[in-house]
Amino acid sequence: MAATDRLNQTSDILSQSMRKTDSSMSVVTAESPYKVSVVGSGNWGTTIAKVVAENTKEKPDLFQEDVNMWVFEEQIDGTPLTQIINTKHQNVKYLPNIDLPENLIANPDLIATTKDADVIVFNVPHQFLGRIVSQMKGQIKPTARAVSCLKGFEVGPKGVQLLSDYVTQELGIECGALSGANLAPEVAKEHWSETTVAYRIPDDFKGEGKDIDHRVLKQLFHRPYFHVNVIDDVAGISIAGALKNVVALGCGFVTGLGWGNNAAAAIQRVGLGEIIKFGRMFFPESKVETYYQESAGVADLITTCSGGRNVRVATEMAKTGKSGEQVEKDILNGQSAQGLVTCKEVHQWLESSGHTEDFPLFEAVYQITYENVPMKELPSMIEELDIVE
Amino acid sequence: MAATDRLNQTSDILSQSMRKTDSSMSVVTAESPYKVSVVGSGNWGTTIAKVVAENTKEKPDLFQEDVNMWVFEEQIDGTPLTQIINTKHQNVKYLPNIDLPENLIANPDLIATTKDADVIVFNVPHQFLGRIVSQMKGQIKPTARAVSCLKGFEVGPKGVQLLSDYVTQELGIECGALSGANLAPEVAKEHWSETTVAYRIPDDFKGEGKDIDHRVLKQLFHRPYFHVNVIDDVAGISIAGALKNVVALGCGFVTGLGWGNNAAAAIQRVGLGEIIKFGRMFFPESKVETYYQESAGVADLITTCSGGRNVRVATEMAKTGKSGEQVEKDILNGQSAQGLVTCKEVHQWLESSGHTEDFPLFEAVYQITYENVPMKELPSMIEELDIVE
Repeated sequence: MAATDRLNQTSDILSQSMRKTDSSMSVVTAESPYKVSVVGSGNWGTTIAKVVAENTKEKPDLFQEDVNMWVFEEQIDGTPLTQIINTKHQNVKYLPNIDLPENLIANPDLIATTKDADVIVFNVPHQFLGRIVSQMKGQIKPTARAVSCLKGFEVGPKGVQLLSDYVTQELGIECGALSGANLAPEVAKEHWSETTVAYRIPDDFKGEGKDIDHRVLKQLFHRPYFHVNVIDDVAGISIAGALKNVVALGCGFVTGLGWGNNAAAAIQRVGLGEIIKFGRMFFPESKVETYYQESAGVADLITTCSGGRNVRVATEMAKTGKSGEQVEKDILNGQSAQGLVTCKEVHQWLESSGHTEDFPLFEAVYQITYENVPMKELPSMIEELDIVE
Repeated sequence: MAATDRLNQTSDILSQSMRKTDSSMSVVTAESPYKVSVVGSGNWGTTIAKVVAENTKEKPDLFQEDVNMWVFEEQIDGTPLTQIINTKHQNVKYLPNIDLPENLIANPDLIATTKDADVIVFNVPHQFLGRIVSQMKGQIKPTARAVSCLKGFEVGPKGVQLLSDYVTQELGIECGALSGANLAPEVAKEHWSETTVAYRIPDDFKGEGKDIDHRVLKQLFHRPYFHVNVIDDVAGISIAGALKNVVALGCGFVTGLGWGNNAAAAIQRVGLGEIIKFGRMFFPESKVETYYQESAGVADLITTCSGGRNVRVATEMAKTGKSGEQVEKDILNGQSAQGLVTCKEVHQWLESSGHTEDFPLFEAVYQITYENVPMKELPSMIEELDIVE
């Protein structure tokens, strides 16, 4: 049978499966359809805005069709980027060659974009979040809910704060998170992937059909090419989303040393274990299953460790002996490898809380990156001797 | 700092770590040092024999130095392979260019190799195990213990039988298993990797210093480049070792369709979940942690899905539309992709036990491979709708 025949053929099993999908996806409605806004229009921001706008268009009983997307205005050959997006329906700067739904409307005014929103999706670079949130204070609906697509957490002297908790604290609205094995260009091209949305139903939940719940979030983000699982565990997916970058540095080191697939898999195994331990230690409400069974856990770890900036930087460090900072300058064109920052913050926190010995891989990545410990000692640094001791 | 400086530099932390290793590794002894034999001398068999012989040589208080390795005799340019191994100390046919310890002694006589052994390590192709074990019946020490490095299980009408249980049943000796993220050529070259040894202490255990226990097995297999964790869960590592090949076929399909890293990671995530479910359903004594925290679990899954025969065959099936059988003939040179056999056996067992719907990925891989279901329907076949239903 030719490949095309194989691909086009249908089967009873599949028809059944797809019918099941259709019927179960159509039952959620709202008394007053929710208005959705997206804050951020980079590569990943625009991709998620595309996903969301496709869904709002198909589900008028649940969402208002038009989705506003806040765009940091810039001129592209003399034309404002928002104007290009709203006429050409492509984000030519950050997501070129991908057609966007016409009901996705770019807006350079942050407050205008978000003031009427029932659901605000945050998808901006980490370093801009504080300024954006401070501008929005008091300017949004007090009943709004939010979802953060930013990865991770901030570590300060008092401990680890989730970015979603920061949004909640600053704006007074419940904020969940979206994270998964989602390289943006693949999602934008509608290649199949999965993601995890985590959202805690708040104490002031107004009831089914009147407020955002797990069923509504599934309807908002799930697409045939973007499979969503919605869970409660915001901490779990945020922890995993940040710490995977430290593990990816470890993978890059062993790759750069030429140690092969076994070693890279070992680093991922140890890394998953330390992510679980970190999550359980500092966010005991997070669930072990989130880490090994969700897209935002093990799958995102695998995707991140199979490529991307952190692996590239660490591989280059191993091959050249240069510092992480130098390699960033040499090969990342002004961008940063998040793992380098995260492993330092994590080290400082573990040191101040007296837990460095519990996380030998995280500590080894830190020592190699910042203390000139030789990479070839990585195995002995993370060795487990639990049986013999 | 130059790369070589970085690599050669030592640090206090490391010295401490290595001292800890040395002292904790030297405390295990035996009243009468154990004799170890290896059955099998292919690529992986010879590699494991090398590991074992390196350890027996270093630990005379625990093991007899000489390790016998049974070799299926063949002539290499007119010289017996055993003679070449015993003089040149290389297995020129199956592990060329790797120096073997001189205390590793090749023997073409299965019974002579194993009759005095206290520990027998099995490492032969699956299809030869039955004949070999039947020859050994009544010819070995009744107090011997065994470790199987064969991956997986056999599925018959009565259910799933572990290969280690088969050895125990046929020879009347306790048999554990060794499995991990271990591409043989990398281990042979002493590139760092990890593995898992699983062994259940039998009811007739004769006591510390008199019988094989977890500490002895760690001493036998652990090397600076081959890190061993010893656990109880023989079923868990055997199940994971077999089913990973089915998951790898799924990864090959999405790779061949050009769907990218997100999709491959999603398949691995779903696959890990189904491996856990399969293990827990049919071997309830197996532990969830084995699957997500051991080298034989998640790490072996990652390594296997990043390359190897099963991924290659499935990728070619996706690209050409040819059957698995045809692709095996075309690209594997007479070798087989174990996943093709395992997915059929697993399907037959799940069908007869009424559980196909619990394992949508395994079932999808089977349907695509044997029932001409189109690959592009894989996502809808494995979709989880747990929230909306």
